[in-house]
Amino acid sequence: MRGVIALDAMGSDRAPRPEVEGAIQAARRFGIQVKLVGRQEALRAELARHPFSRSLPISIVHASEVITMEDKAVQAVRAKRDSSMRVGLRLVREGQAAAFITAGNTGAAMATAKMVLGALPGVDRPALVAIIPTATGTVATLLDVGANVDCKPHNLEQFALMGEIYFRSMFGTAKPRIGLLSIGEEEGKGNELTREAYQVLKQLPLNFIGNVEGRDLYSGKVDVIVADGFVGNVALKTSEGVVNLVRAMLKETLAATITRQVGYLLSRSAFSDFKKRLDHTEYGGAPLLGVKGPCFITHGSSNANAIKNALRVAEEFVDRKIIVAIEKELAGPVAEMLS
Amino acid sequence: MRGVIALDAMGSDRAPRPEVEGAIQAARRFGIQVKLVGRQEALRAELARHPFSRSLPISIVHASEVITMEDKAVQAVRAKRDSSMRVGLRLVREGQAAAFITAGNTGAAMATAKMVLGALPGVDRPALVAIIPTATGTVATLLDVGANVDCKPHNLEQFALMGEIYFRSMFGTAKPRIGLLSIGEEEGKGNELTREAYQVLKQLPLNFIGNVEGRDLYSGKVDVIVADGFVGNVALKTSEGVVNLVRAMLKETLAATITRQVGYLLSRSAFSDFKKRLDHTEYGGAPLLGVKGPCFITHGSSNANAIKNALRVAEEFVDRKIIVAIEKELAGPVAEMLS
Repeated sequence: MRGVIALDAMGSDRAPRPEVEGAIQAARRFGIQVKLVGRQEALRAELARHPFSRSLPISIVHASEVITMEDKAVQAVRAKRDSSMRVGLRLVREGQAAAFITAGNTGAAMATAKMVLGALPGVDRPALVAIIPTATGTVATLLDVGANVDCKPHNLEQFALMGEIYFRSMFGTAKPRIGLLSIGEEEGKGNELTREAYQVLKQLPLNFIGNVEGRDLYSGKVDVIVADGFVGNVALKTSEGVVNLVRAMLKETLAATITRQVGYLLSRSAFSDFKKRLDHTEYGGAPLLGVKGPCFITHGSSNANAIKNALRVAEEFVDRKIIVAIEKELAGPVAEMLS
Repeated sequence: MRGVIALDAMGSDRAPRPEVEGAIQAARRFGIQVKLVGRQEALRAELARHPFSRSLPISIVHASEVITMEDKAVQAVRAKRDSSMRVGLRLVREGQAAAFITAGNTGAAMATAKMVLGALPGVDRPALVAIIPTATGTVATLLDVGANVDCKPHNLEQFALMGEIYFRSMFGTAKPRIGLLSIGEEEGKGNELTREAYQVLKQLPLNFIGNVEGRDLYSGKVDVIVADGFVGNVALKTSEGVVNLVRAMLKETLAATITRQVGYLLSRSAFSDFKKRLDHTEYGGAPLLGVKGPCFITHGSSNANAIKNALRVAEEFVDRKIIVAIEKELAGPVAEMLS
């Protein structure tokens, strides 16, 4: 089923337009086959705006219901049995698609994926991975950011193993540096969870570099940062807050005098580069690791470009057989060594 | 003892120079009386560089030992009985100074303050408050950022009460908005600690606005953000990391072409404004709330300006009798209502 990807066409804030345009771009540029999942009439109408799309490998799979950003995850999963998320994930489970992508409600997507695909053997809690830029120009990954709260040390252990395989496979780093997010670098620093998790992580056959602090997330000194989902989520959203603050301050500051406005005009392309580099849309979606099938969640504000990139990255993920590797690792020698 | 402030003159990365210069500035500009605490010879030599300082209300209190950034907090407190931190805090305890300020090792400063001053009645854990800028131009406060890990709901309750009094007194807001740092706005969202703390906080006679997320820290929609010290510390250090990333990216991006360099030169004053606004040095030190005496911890990288501002803010804090208010509140009607 290589190259056939199920795309929730009803997920983003301006759905289905970005999804349909992103699918068209990915199909034209990369030859990716896309199943658009959602309300048939709406999708037909949207595709009709692009007459040339008829020659592309894009098809529609009807789903009558839509999970909104306002829906509560658990209720939505139960109540909306014909949602585009559920139908799309079913395509993966039944082998009719190699991966699933949604720009919809993160909580609902995670809950639906766990229910429809199920967790891999040896995985207690699937983890959502954030891909973040660093000051050295590389990317780093932070997991979990998907609200696995009140984690135990063995959850963090699984996050480390899954994160390592993912990073190694996707970014070609032989020995990714694994760090534990804490509040001090020394082994004894942190809270009860991180102190215990430290002892577990240092015994794994990983390049574990010990505790890292919040300021290290974006420094480039660590590749895979492991955290309880509450802490990871706070760190990620705090980062968004800082970026928004910086934008607001720069804008205001640069608007203050004519000289500055001229300066701003002359350096405008630099700002647009800068925004692009901070922009998640280049990295594709956040993978949900630990479920039985590739599943990606992208920002609700995704545009066509973000959707196109998510499709490209999902195909790479499938090609690199990351799920198989995680399954082997977590059911294999490491698991035995530790059990 | 109004106006006499004990300043650890050996704390900052380049001590005692910024401390001595900051003390001179504060004494000249605001008439603040400063006791410089540290190695007498070093301080005399430094003061001798400013001959006019003899006419200022600055004196030296000798302390033979220095706690370094590398010292482990608990050991340093026990081993170095004549450290500048310990001597300075003793001045507060004995009524010879109205407040204490240090730019030294945060962990050691907190531990020494708890030991020398002791906690206020009704306070289980003193909390360190970070003062942060917001997109609306106001400031917000986040507590605890001082490594009170594995908090219980009643710790967060005390943080909320102390934070409210502090914010109201220092920033003149009648009803500061109190938020609980969590990972979703709805009442049921979060981890075990925040769900329980929510129930406690909503019963307090405070303007409790419910859960806030990481992205709200800098938005200006909340004044006092309450968090477990592990989470608060991660949020604060992550923010530092993002600011460093943004600086690195902007610098690199703006260096790329001649046009951009010209743009940068023309907007340079904007950048320096911007840096200043992100700079903690304007807000004075972080207060440690809940100990029996005013105690402030400033950045190790503090310059003379930061020290001067810390002295000014410490004097304001003393004038507003914040410690007395906290003591009353936590031993008074609210405490009875809740016990």
